[in-house]
Amino acid sequence: MPSDKVRDWNLKEIKQLVEKMRYAQRIRELFGLYLSPAVSQAILEGKVATDGENREVTVLFCDIRDFTAFSQSKAPRQVVARLNSFFERMSAAVDAHGGFINKFLGDGFLAVFGAPGRSADHAQQAVEAALAMEASLGVFNQELARDEEPPMEIGIGLDTGEVIVGNVGCANRMEYTVIGDAANRSSRIQKLNKSLGTRILVSDYTYQKCELGGGRALGAQTVRGLDEPLVLVTVGERA
Amino acid sequence: MPSDKVRDWNLKEIKQLVEKMRYAQRIRELFGLYLSPAVSQAILEGKVATDGENREVTVLFCDIRDFTAFSQSKAPRQVVARLNSFFERMSAAVDAHGGFINKFLGDGFLAVFGAPGRSADHAQQAVEAALAMEASLGVFNQELARDEEPPMEIGIGLDTGEVIVGNVGCANRMEYTVIGDAANRSSRIQKLNKSLGTRILVSDYTYQKCELGGGRALGAQTVRGLDEPLVLVTVGERA
Repeated sequence: MPSDKVRDWNLKEIKQLVEKMRYAQRIRELFGLYLSPAVSQAILEGKVATDGENREVTVLFCDIRDFTAFSQSKAPRQVVARLNSFFERMSAAVDAHGGFINKFLGDGFLAVFGAPGRSADHAQQAVEAALAMEASLGVFNQELARDEEPPMEIGIGLDTGEVIVGNVGCANRMEYTVIGDAANRSSRIQKLNKSLGTRILVSDYTYQKCELGGGRALGAQTVRGLDEPLVLVTVGERA
Repeated sequence: MPSDKVRDWNLKEIKQLVEKMRYAQRIRELFGLYLSPAVSQAILEGKVATDGENREVTVLFCDIRDFTAFSQSKAPRQVVARLNSFFERMSAAVDAHGGFINKFLGDGFLAVFGAPGRSADHAQQAVEAALAMEASLGVFNQELARDEEPPMEIGIGLDTGEVIVGNVGCANRMEYTVIGDAANRSSRIQKLNKSLGTRILVSDYTYQKCELGGGRALGAQTVRGLDEPLVLVTVGERA
């Protein structure tokens, strides 16, 4: 019965294909999950320049204080659960202001505003994201207090500048990333929070690009790894 | 003609599904590309503990010297091309010794040995990878010299220790990562290469776990961010 055979073959084939589609769907979900929806979308649409592009962006670096000490007193699953719960809230604040988390770095992360999609007001978006992160941390710490857990403390550093954005890596391992002084500086600016007793430190250049009140100028600060001092401003609750 | 209709419908459906399969295949390739083949495989097979796991691993941190200066004198596409060419070679050395590149960090990267697959001799693998990277850099620099390009210089730091491995992030953004002192320390150990005039620095703990000759003990060194000095050994050409 040739017609039946064709139908059987087709049904079996379709069944297999549907099965593979489910698998493909899972891969697509995971791909978005591991790369951030905005970046995976841009990559799938071929909108990411593989050979590099100059672009002014604002980079936000966030670090948890004393997380190593916390890690050592808890079971691994508690550490990861706490980190994920924290990242969930911070990521929501970043996303809500047009940025994306480019990298998780142990107990910190690096977020970028102004890429992959272009944005004219990336500095303003990034500073507003930092303020939203601070507010969100406050709510999180109230919840931790209710559970009789110690509060979390963070430091945030921001800088704006021209970076190279693109796909960096090798044939079997790529990363969409930003390369440039602004990326390095945001991390170094962040480190100064500890000695300055601040929580959010913004380079003067970034601050000047925003329309924000309430900042407190800290003058020129020596930043490790930079030849010249950098004028910094602090914003938020500790300003 | 119902049988024809069924066949038409099936053929159209199959055609669509095949089209979607090609797209899915591309996503799968990209997924592997952006996550490293070993990690994407482990994730797709559900072998990555999402809630965190303690594991002893060896972490290798590699950084390019003075890359910012190089970046500023070249066009973005030249910078990315050079970086990718460099990462291609370093990644081959890491892969050949059982490790994987966990993160690219601008002009550096962090590689892990002993995860996601378990390995009893991750310290030995990592040190051998560092030596292979050094040899590969030598060949690369000869090629650069032929093209009348300045050579590249790197620093490598290694440390072994118990870390938490797992998926860290939030609902729409995950990363398979390692959290712990060994990860932070490898980066800090690397930084000492500059002042010590070395290229590959290994913590004494990592070195003791290897069966290697030719190391040169450097005694206890003060490592920024660590309370106690760390005994270091240098290996390779500058040992």
